[in-house]
Amino acid sequence: MDKLSVVKIGGNVIENRRALAAFLNDFAALEGSKIIVHGGGKEATLMAQQLGIPVQMIDGRRVTDAATLDLITMVYGGKINKTIVAQLQALGCNALGFTGADGNSITALKRSPQPVDFGFVGDVSKVETALLKVLFQQGITPVFCAITHDGAGQLLNTNADTVAASLAKALATDFEVQLMYCFEKKGVLENVEDNASVLPKINAELYEKLKQENKIHSGMLPKLHNCFDALQQGVKHVFIGDAEMIRLQAPYTQIEL
Amino acid sequence: MDKLSVVKIGGNVIENRRALAAFLNDFAALEGSKIIVHGGGKEATLMAQQLGIPVQMIDGRRVTDAATLDLITMVYGGKINKTIVAQLQALGCNALGFTGADGNSITALKRSPQPVDFGFVGDVSKVETALLKVLFQQGITPVFCAITHDGAGQLLNTNADTVAASLAKALATDFEVQLMYCFEKKGVLENVEDNASVLPKINAELYEKLKQENKIHSGMLPKLHNCFDALQQGVKHVFIGDAEMIRLQAPYTQIEL
Repeated sequence: MDKLSVVKIGGNVIENRRALAAFLNDFAALEGSKIIVHGGGKEATLMAQQLGIPVQMIDGRRVTDAATLDLITMVYGGKINKTIVAQLQALGCNALGFTGADGNSITALKRSPQPVDFGFVGDVSKVETALLKVLFQQGITPVFCAITHDGAGQLLNTNADTVAASLAKALATDFEVQLMYCFEKKGVLENVEDNASVLPKINAELYEKLKQENKIHSGMLPKLHNCFDALQQGVKHVFIGDAEMIRLQAPYTQIEL
Repeated sequence: MDKLSVVKIGGNVIENRRALAAFLNDFAALEGSKIIVHGGGKEATLMAQQLGIPVQMIDGRRVTDAATLDLITMVYGGKINKTIVAQLQALGCNALGFTGADGNSITALKRSPQPVDFGFVGDVSKVETALLKVLFQQGITPVFCAITHDGAGQLLNTNADTVAASLAKALATDFEVQLMYCFEKKGVLENVEDNASVLPKINAELYEKLKQENKIHSGMLPKLHNCFDALQQGVKHVFIGDAEMIRLQAPYTQIEL
């Protein structure tokens, strides 16, 4: 099977011009088919402040009213997405920007307002891979922002880690997929205070042990859940690290079943 | 040859929710391959005011400094483009949003700062049709906002009428193209004060006569220039009218050589 890399980048890379340029340079050099999935929460928060739109977070997740949805569509789907696409083009990587509405690629269900009403937030229900496969054959690199749609005209804010895992899982029947989560640390840390304590491998057994010892902090739990779920559904390799990880030289954490 | 419609819509349709829904309904029903090109200047101006970004227009064209480029990338490439894409999906039309950077589809040259420095404004230099043709085969409808790139990482603000004409001309070797400019009037008016004075046809001879009689106002001149240029370069049919024109029932103006 052909290889496919699905690389998710977070705000610490997106908001730092130099870090983004370095990352995109490494990404453009990756062999095989590839996808970027990006967030942009920090920049959205900054723009919300400028526009006087209240920012409400519950459990680290953004409550998305109509004004906030417009805002993230502008920031994620417009500014950040097109900046990445244009910069990849300059590196000879033929990028094409996507929300889940584009090409009907990712459909989601609006989350129930019970127990917490997050507003226009969606959970992925279907990934359509036929168009993406045609695009890979054409040498295109899709760049996804974390916005989906319900198929009935409504855009929905969706967690970027989940978008990346959903794409990786859906394409795992046709490709040998590696899923890479780039965030601000060099990997999963055994001691959250010590950046040198990167765990090189985590399997299900170690994961349970770390959870019992309270060594995994709250934000890492859903990320690791996405990792194990992806592996269980056919994704070949899953990595967590910082943006330099995509060269697979720096320290990073590999997740295994 | 297969038929292709390139339809440009202006601010009067984009900013009116009901008018946009009616237009998209008609557009989705159009047979054959099709492209939408949209502007969004009025909404960009509104957002600029909210963000305190000064709006500077020279000869009806927006001076695009770095802050304004970010703004239009958010408004045109994000909010307006993705709203149209999601609404077309709900109508069963498989839309995919583009700037010229996406798929490297439209490259432009930054305009010389002499005699007037318009900032990050580009004039189309190359349209890449190979990917678009593959997408038409897949039943995809591209939705272009009026942003291009220079191929070296820089996005550029580009006149939406020109983007539409450039796409129409580039695809005229492979398709029987009709180019439709939808704006706020029912067509080119013989008397600009009388909305009932729509000229059903304008050819080059009548165009010269109308210009000499000062019957064509300033904003119409570049639009008609784009129309004649498109016809001279192989576009089969060119129409000017309001958004209802795409049903080809209402009054409209057809441009002929």
